[in-house]
Amino acid sequence: MNSRSSTRRDFLKTSTLAAASLPFIGALTPSIRAADPGRKLGFALVGLGNLSTNQIVPALQKTKFCKLAGIVTGSSTKAERWKAQYNLQDKNIYNYDTMEQMADNPDIDVVYVVTPNALHAEHTIKAAKAGKHVLCEKPMEVSSEKCQQMIDACKKAGRQLAIGYRLHFEPNNLECVRLAREKVFGDLKFIEADFGFRIGDPKQWRLNRALAGGGPLMDVGIYALQATRYITGEEPVLVTAVETVTDPVKFKDVEETIAWQLKFPSGIVTSSTSTYNFNGMARYQAFAENGWFELAPAYGYNGIQGRRSDGQAINLESGDQFAAEMDNFAQCILKNQPTKVPGEEGLRDIKIMMAIYEAARTGKSVNLA
Amino acid sequence: MNSRSSTRRDFLKTSTLAAASLPFIGALTPSIRAADPGRKLGFALVGLGNLSTNQIVPALQKTKFCKLAGIVTGSSTKAERWKAQYNLQDKNIYNYDTMEQMADNPDIDVVYVVTPNALHAEHTIKAAKAGKHVLCEKPMEVSSEKCQQMIDACKKAGRQLAIGYRLHFEPNNLECVRLAREKVFGDLKFIEADFGFRIGDPKQWRLNRALAGGGPLMDVGIYALQATRYITGEEPVLVTAVETVTDPVKFKDVEETIAWQLKFPSGIVTSSTSTYNFNGMARYQAFAENGWFELAPAYGYNGIQGRRSDGQAINLESGDQFAAEMDNFAQCILKNQPTKVPGEEGLRDIKIMMAIYEAARTGKSVNLA
Repeated sequence: MNSRSSTRRDFLKTSTLAAASLPFIGALTPSIRAADPGRKLGFALVGLGNLSTNQIVPALQKTKFCKLAGIVTGSSTKAERWKAQYNLQDKNIYNYDTMEQMADNPDIDVVYVVTPNALHAEHTIKAAKAGKHVLCEKPMEVSSEKCQQMIDACKKAGRQLAIGYRLHFEPNNLECVRLAREKVFGDLKFIEADFGFRIGDPKQWRLNRALAGGGPLMDVGIYALQATRYITGEEPVLVTAVETVTDPVKFKDVEETIAWQLKFPSGIVTSSTSTYNFNGMARYQAFAENGWFELAPAYGYNGIQGRRSDGQAINLESGDQFAAEMDNFAQCILKNQPTKVPGEEGLRDIKIMMAIYEAARTGKSVNLA
Repeated sequence: MNSRSSTRRDFLKTSTLAAASLPFIGALTPSIRAADPGRKLGFALVGLGNLSTNQIVPALQKTKFCKLAGIVTGSSTKAERWKAQYNLQDKNIYNYDTMEQMADNPDIDVVYVVTPNALHAEHTIKAAKAGKHVLCEKPMEVSSEKCQQMIDACKKAGRQLAIGYRLHFEPNNLECVRLAREKVFGDLKFIEADFGFRIGDPKQWRLNRALAGGGPLMDVGIYALQATRYITGEEPVLVTAVETVTDPVKFKDVEETIAWQLKFPSGIVTSSTSTYNFNGMARYQAFAENGWFELAPAYGYNGIQGRRSDGQAINLESGDQFAAEMDNFAQCILKNQPTKVPGEEGLRDIKIMMAIYEAARTGKSVNLA
C-alpha cells in the first residue's frame, strides 16, 4: 500500500499521529502557542460571494472552535455591509492587495479562501506568507503546478492547508465509507456516482475557463470523483472519458457534460457524469458482492439520505457540514494534528481531473498508475 | 435522416408500409396464403432450456395468434417430456439434424430460435431454408458476419426475421419512448442505463465465449444498449469503454464487468454498465432540459415501473412481454407488414457491442459514424 492509499484509508479515523511525523507541520504560530487550547480560532473569509454569504458565515455561528474575525474583499460596498452586519473592526478588513498585512494581526488564525478557482493559489500563498493556516475551497486550483505551489508555501510557512471537502465530515457519507471498509455487503465491485445541475447566468465566472479552470467536472463532478475515491479507499489507475456540447454558445469555454470511468487497483470500476446542462443527477450507488448501498441525494448542504439493498435506510442527522469542517480544522490546528483533507488530497483530484479532460480530448484512456 | 435512424424513429408506430416497399419480404408462404388470416400461427421452439420452458411456452398459452406446434431439441428426454406435456405429434418433433425437414410440415409457420448465441445463425438459416419465418432470441449472433448471413438467408427465402426484443412491446418502455419523442421534458441530454446480475453456475454456456460470443454485455447489457438507442431514437457515433476482471477464474473467457459510454449525433451522451458479478443494477434514467424520467427496474419480465421528475409515476399494466412479442410477429406475418424488430436491428446492436469490446480492449474511442 502506498502513502496515497493510506491517506485515503484514514478517511474514517481521527488521526493521532504525533506532530513529529508530519513534515508539513512546522513550528506552531505564536498566536496559538500562547492561546487557551479551548479558545475560538479567528477565521478571515477571502471572497464574499454566494458561498461565503449564504453558507460559511451562517455556519461560523454554529461552530464551537471558530469565529468570524476578518474579511478580504475587493468591494468597498461589501466591506461596509459585512462590517456593519458582523461588527467587524476596521483593522480586520482587508483587500486583495493588503491581505499580506494580516501577518501583524493576531485576531486572524485561519484564512478561508472562497474566491474563484484560479485565484486560490494567489490567496493561499499570501495567507501562508502572512503566517496563517489556510482552508481553501474545492477545487484546489486549476493546475497541478499551482496546487503544488500552495502546498509548498504552507509547508514553508509551517502552517496547515486544508481543502473544503465538507462531505468528509458528513455522517451519511461516512456511513457509506464504513459500509465499504467493513465490507458489510462484501467486496466492492462498481460505483456509479453523478453530480450535475443546469447552470443559470451565462456570464458567471464558473463558465469562464480562465477563472474556473474547467466546467462542471471541476465544480461539482469533483464530488462524484471524491465519492468514488473515498468509498473505494483506492486511487484510480486508468481513466476513460467522453464529453459533449449541445449549446456551443453558452459552453464555448468549459465543458457542458462529461462522463468518465475510472478503474482502481483492486479491479473496481466507477462510472460518473457531471453536467451544467440538466438537473436531477446527484447520487451515488455502490455495488458489492452481496448487495449495494446508495445515497440520493448524496452531496447537498442538507437532505442527504440513502438506502441499502437489505432494505435499511441511511438517514443520519447531518448538521451543518461547513461548521463541522471548520471545527475539525480548528481542532487539527489547536491540537497540532493533521487534517484528513490536506492540500495533497486536493492535488490528487486535480491530477485525476486533468487526466479525465485529457482522455475526453484525445479519445484515449489515460494511465494514472 | 438515414434509413437507420428512420427505423429507430418508427419504434412507436405500427407500420403501414406496403409490402412492395419491403425488399426483405418476398412471396408469401403457401401455408399462410391459403390460411384464414385470423388463425393461430404454429410456432416451433428450437432449444428447450430455461427461457423456453419458463417463459416462452407459458407465454404461448396467452397469445391470440400463436400456438406451440413443434419443438427442436437434441435431447430425447426433453422431447419425450414436452411431447407428453404439450400433446405434440411425433411428426412435429425434430432434432438439430432433422429440422430442415420442416419444409414439408404445414403445421409450423414460425421457428423461434432459443439456442445459445453462437448457434443462432445455423438454426435461423436452417429454418429459413425450410421456408419458415424466424423469431430469434437476442443477441442475434456473435459476429456481424453471421448476422448478415441470417438476414440474407431469410431474405432469399422470402421469410421474415425478427429478433426477440421483448421490451419493444412493453408499455412502460414505450411510455418512456413517448416522453422522449414528444419532448415532454424538453430535449434529451443524457441517459444512464445499466443492467447486470451475479451469475451462478460457472459451467453454463453463458460463460463460454465460443457459445456466448461475450459476457454480460451480450446477454443483458444489450438491454441497456437498446434502451439508449430506442429512447434517443438515434444511432451512436462514438464509443468509449473499460472492462474489469476481479475473478479471473470464473471470468477467464468472457468479461466480468464492462462500462461503456456512447455519444449520439445530437450530442446526447449515454453511460452504461453491465456485469455478471453483482446484483442490483437494472435501471435507466433519462435526463432532459427540464426534467427526467426513470424506469427501475426497467428490463424484467414483470414489475417494470418508474417515475418522472414531476412526481408522476410510470406504472402501466405490462402483460406478458413474450406473448406480446409473438403476437406482434404473427400479425406482421399474417398482414405482410414489417416487424419493428427485424434482423437489421439485431445486427446494429452486434456492431455496436463489437465496438464496445474494441474500445475496452484498445483503450481508444471507436468511431461508429
